[in-house]
Order: sequence, then C-alpha cells, then structure tokens
Amino acid sequence: MSHRGIRTSRRGARPGVLAIVALALLAVAGAVQADPLASWKAGATKSRIVNFVEQAADPASKGYIPAADRVAVFDNDGTLWSEQPMYFQLAFMIDRVRELAPSHPEWKTTQPFKAALEGDLKALAAGGEHALLELLMATHTGMSTEEFEAIVRDWLAKARHPKTGQPYTEMVYQPQLELLEHLRRSGFKVYIVSGGGIEFLRVFSEEVYGVPRENVVGSSVETRYEVVNGKPVLMRLPKIAFIDDKAGKPVGINQHIGRRPVLAFGNSDGDFEMLEWTTAGSGPRLGLIVHHDDGVREYAYDRKSAMGSLDKGLDEAEKRGWVLVSMKDDWSRVYPEPESRR
Amino acid sequence: MSHRGIRTSRRGARPGVLAIVALALLAVAGAVQADPLASWKAGATKSRIVNFVEQAADPASKGYIPAADRVAVFDNDGTLWSEQPMYFQLAFMIDRVRELAPSHPEWKTTQPFKAALEGDLKALAAGGEHALLELLMATHTGMSTEEFEAIVRDWLAKARHPKTGQPYTEMVYQPQLELLEHLRRSGFKVYIVSGGGIEFLRVFSEEVYGVPRENVVGSSVETRYEVVNGKPVLMRLPKIAFIDDKAGKPVGINQHIGRRPVLAFGNSDGDFEMLEWTTAGSGPRLGLIVHHDDGVREYAYDRKSAMGSLDKGLDEAEKRGWVLVSMKDDWSRVYPEPESRR
Repeated sequence: MSHRGIRTSRRGARPGVLAIVALALLAVAGAVQADPLASWKAGATKSRIVNFVEQAADPASKGYIPAADRVAVFDNDGTLWSEQPMYFQLAFMIDRVRELAPSHPEWKTTQPFKAALEGDLKALAAGGEHALLELLMATHTGMSTEEFEAIVRDWLAKARHPKTGQPYTEMVYQPQLELLEHLRRSGFKVYIVSGGGIEFLRVFSEEVYGVPRENVVGSSVETRYEVVNGKPVLMRLPKIAFIDDKAGKPVGINQHIGRRPVLAFGNSDGDFEMLEWTTAGSGPRLGLIVHHDDGVREYAYDRKSAMGSLDKGLDEAEKRGWVLVSMKDDWSRVYPEPESRR
Repeated sequence: MSHRGIRTSRRGARPGVLAIVALALLAVAGAVQADPLASWKAGATKSRIVNFVEQAADPASKGYIPAADRVAVFDNDGTLWSEQPMYFQLAFMIDRVRELAPSHPEWKTTQPFKAALEGDLKALAAGGEHALLELLMATHTGMSTEEFEAIVRDWLAKARHPKTGQPYTEMVYQPQLELLEHLRRSGFKVYIVSGGGIEFLRVFSEEVYGVPRENVVGSSVETRYEVVNGKPVLMRLPKIAFIDDKAGKPVGINQHIGRRPVLAFGNSDGDFEMLEWTTAGSGPRLGLIVHHDDGVREYAYDRKSAMGSLDKGLDEAEKRGWVLVSMKDDWSRVYPEPESRR
C-alpha cells in the first residue's frame, strides 16, 4: 500500500524520465478501470465524499483547497478498525498483564490486576480511570521506546480477535482503507488522531493504513533521554504526558500538524471537538461519523456503549452538517478479504 | 521555494502526463547547469555533505538510506539564522513588552519588565530563568493561537536587526537554504527542531525555509480548547508544556516524528543530545555543527557566549565524527542577497 508520489530527481537523468512516463501511463490506465471507493455503496454519502475530494483538488472549482491545507484527520478505534468487544489496546494491556503475571504473584489478589487476569471487564470498569491508569503504567512503561515497539509488534503478530479469530490488523474497515488512499492520491495529507497511544499506533500505521509514523497523533506517556552504557535510549516513564481525546484532539492536532484540518472522520463523542474544530473553519469542510448500525457484519451500538459511545454526536450531526455514515447502508463490505483467502 | 514532489493524479489523464514529462525535462536541464550548494566552498566539509546525500539516495550505494528513513533535523537559532546579539524571539519578547507597557504602568518599576523596557540585558540575565519565564508568559500567552500568529507576523514585518538593519527573516544563512532544498530534492524529509517556540517558528518556516508547519518541532505552552460565542479557539495558557532543548530534543523528535533522524545539524551545546541520538543509530549517519568563527561577515563566538554557547560540542566533535562547519572557511557567502537588491 504505497502512499508516496513520484519525485523527479536531480540525479535521475534519462532513466528517471522514462520511469516517470511509464508510471504516469500506468496511473492513467488505473483511473479508467477502477472505482477508488469500490466498497462504498452508491448514494448520498458516497456522492458527498467523492464531490468534496474532487472539488478540493480542482483549481477551477468553488470547493478548491490549496494543497498545503488539504489535511484530513481520522480517529482510529471504531473509525479505521473495530473497537468491540473492547478497545484493542485494552486487549493488549490485559494480555500483557497475563504475560508478566508470573513475576508478580501478588497480582492474583490485587486489583486491578486480579480483574485483568480473570478477564473481568465489569470489575475493571468498576475501578474507573484509576484502575486503567495503573494497568497502563504496569504494561506500557518502564522500558525503552524500542523495547516497547518490539513488545507491541510481537503481540500484533500473535493475538487474535475473540469473535472473528483474525489478527487485529485484519479488523480494519476496507471502505476506509480505500478512502485514505483516495485522499492521498488527491493530494491530501492524511493523519490519524487517536485517543490510543501514539507509540502503539505507530507500530502498524504505515503497514496497515499507509499512514507514516510522523502522521500519527495520539496519547502519550513522558519519555526521558538517557545514555546507558554509552548507548542513548528514550525511557518510557510511568507518567501521562498527553491525553489525545475529546477537547484534547484539537490541542494535539495543533501541536503536531499546526494547521486546522479540512476533513475529519470520527465515530464517537471522543471525536466531537475534533469535528467541531475542523468544520468551524472557513472554506470547504467535511465532517463524517461512522454509525455502528451493523450487528450482522460488525457490531450495532451507539449511545449506551462502554467503548466508543456516540450520543451528543448523534443528536447534533444533522444541525452541524456532519455526515452520518451508516455501516449497514453505506458500506458494501466491512473488512478486507481475510489474509488467508487473498 | 517549493519542496513538493510531483504527484500523478487519477484525474489527471493526458495533460497530467505531458506536465510530468515537461517538469522532468526541466529537472534534468537544471541538474546539468547548477551546483545546488553554490554557497558552500569546495573542500572536505562540502564533499562530506555532498557524498552523504548522494549515497543516501542511491540504491546501489553502501550509504543508501530507504526514503522513509531519510529524516534530517536542523536547529534554528545559530544554525539556520543568526542568534546575536540576542535570540530573535527574545527581541520579539522585549518589543512586545514595550508595546504592551502603556497598559501596565507598574512595569516601569517592576523587574523583569523594567529591564526589558530599558533594554538592559545584563539585568535580565541576572533575573535568570524565572525572569525570562515571566516575560514569556506576559507576552506569549493569554490569547488564542490565531491571535498570537497575527502578532508575530506583524512583528516580523516591522522589526529590524540592530546591526544590519535587515528584517530578521533576511538574517538566514544562504548555504543552509541551499542545503535544505538539496536534501528535499534528494528525498529527505526536513524538520526544524528548535528550543524556540513552535508557534513562533511556524509563522515563517514555510515561507523562509520551505519547511511546512507540520515539520516544526519546538518548545510550547499549554493550550486549551474553548468555544467562545459559538466559535472554537485554542487559548494559549501561562504554563510551559515542553522545553525542546538539550535532552528534550530527542524527546521532541520522538514525539513528533517517531523516527530517529539520519542527519542532524546544530550549532550549540543545546543540540548535543540531538546530535548524539542521531549519530548513535545504525547505518549511515551525519552530524554537523556550525562553528561561528566569522566576526567579519557574522559573529565570532563559542565557549563563552550567553547565546548559543558551544563548549562540550567543540571538545567532542572530532572523537564523535561530527563535522565542524567553519562559517569563515566553508561558506562563500553567509546571508542571501538583501531583498532590496534582488
């Protein structure tokens, strides 16, 4: 899944020119054949997206957006991949507690570790934010950034979704993969803006979504630069640095990107301020919300869900001009062809 | 100063192909004519840079670096523009105190404002970090991000450097402008990593350096998302969020970019850890330090300077394989042709 444009090179000379012509011709051929949003059903939602993107890239259009300002932001959990029966990073956390448990016999009788070991989500939820924070610190900190990345990579390779039996990285939405790529081909810079951990996401964002590591905005813990035996490392400390959720999302966007996006895609009330900030700017804007109304192919939930609750957004979408994307009616398929059958 | 590659477009069809061919031919013609680093004198330093960049982009070379990893980081003060007789952002701060003084009659008799109003740098320095922080909060916070940007833009248009009488944005180093562009043309992603304020830098980074806003890493104050009369804003709060200096630079790089750079260019001990972190990675690496040894065309200072002191870096550069770039001997010109004579 490549997301890079073609570059001329000062050193390229004639072979470079030929390669560019060949690639350009391939691109033309591709355009004639394929619908870039093949997994989006024809209808009002698809038309709205297609028109916005087409006009944004067309200097003759009233909806034109200069290339530098073509910034699109996507939430991750529930927007790019599933978030049921629990956030996948929470599943990672629980698996990690189990893996570390043999060195912590006291966890068998101490909350919130006991609940995590027993997979007791209700007891975990009863512990509130404090319980989650304690699990987070025990599983996500106390190692270098490089060690953490290796741990996440290893988990992603082995872990399987409890309902589908697929790797978590296969639980991504095919229509969204197509949209990310379509936006990039139309000159948009595409970012992920997630309440999840920035260094968790970066392990797979490039391979799975074509979103490079530097285009990921997320929650983070503090890190400290240390030279250990002559080798510099960044140690992950048991202290929250930033929560990239709700009113934190515009803050994180401003800090990382320094521009107000023109397109925002979310699915829960955690994305409300990101949508509000994006669509309050002048000029063409598009706000989109995935509505999880497909209990057959994925999950059906909104106002009352413990993960990814959508309540205020559901009430206000219409009045604010945000598009509610029905998973059931607007997507012809949800997940990509499973890896085994590709 | 464009830094963008050429992109094929699904919608481009034949005109797109012709445009690409024309641009490719122009690029070839350009390569034959011009030395991209014309303001760098021939010699060991220039050869080291030219070879590193050429090999990084050449898949057949031992020094090849995959495109995604071609990340170059530049300090700003003293590396891309001058930092004498004081950091330009400090000059902004002092000018701002003077502008706000009529509404604060008590500043005439209260430090550190009195020192700022009198331009008494010695008294300011005597107040230490606390004094600077107090000035910073009074001049850089309490407004929205958009209001702050307008204030900085206005100042940059009017303010003049005390020695040269030029706008501060003309006090940039011509050889570095050439290097930034040469790196981008060779497929490098170029970032500024500065101890200065991220939102101060973003006002001019794109126009002056060709570095887009999202590629700026810097120090920051906290911001808060607020909806004021139905209009969302990000308010700048009187609280430091992050200091992007010394051991903070690798932390900022990791947070924003999520990759270890392969090239780092600094000028003071504030860049030491950034150079260390960059050059400790595996594969081809290049660390560079501007040595301010040109009292005729710019300023001559290193170990004892109040701004941009270079002491440890001077001692350790050789042993660590970092290149000391002599402003006097390696640069054929320092500043660009003044705007008035272009």
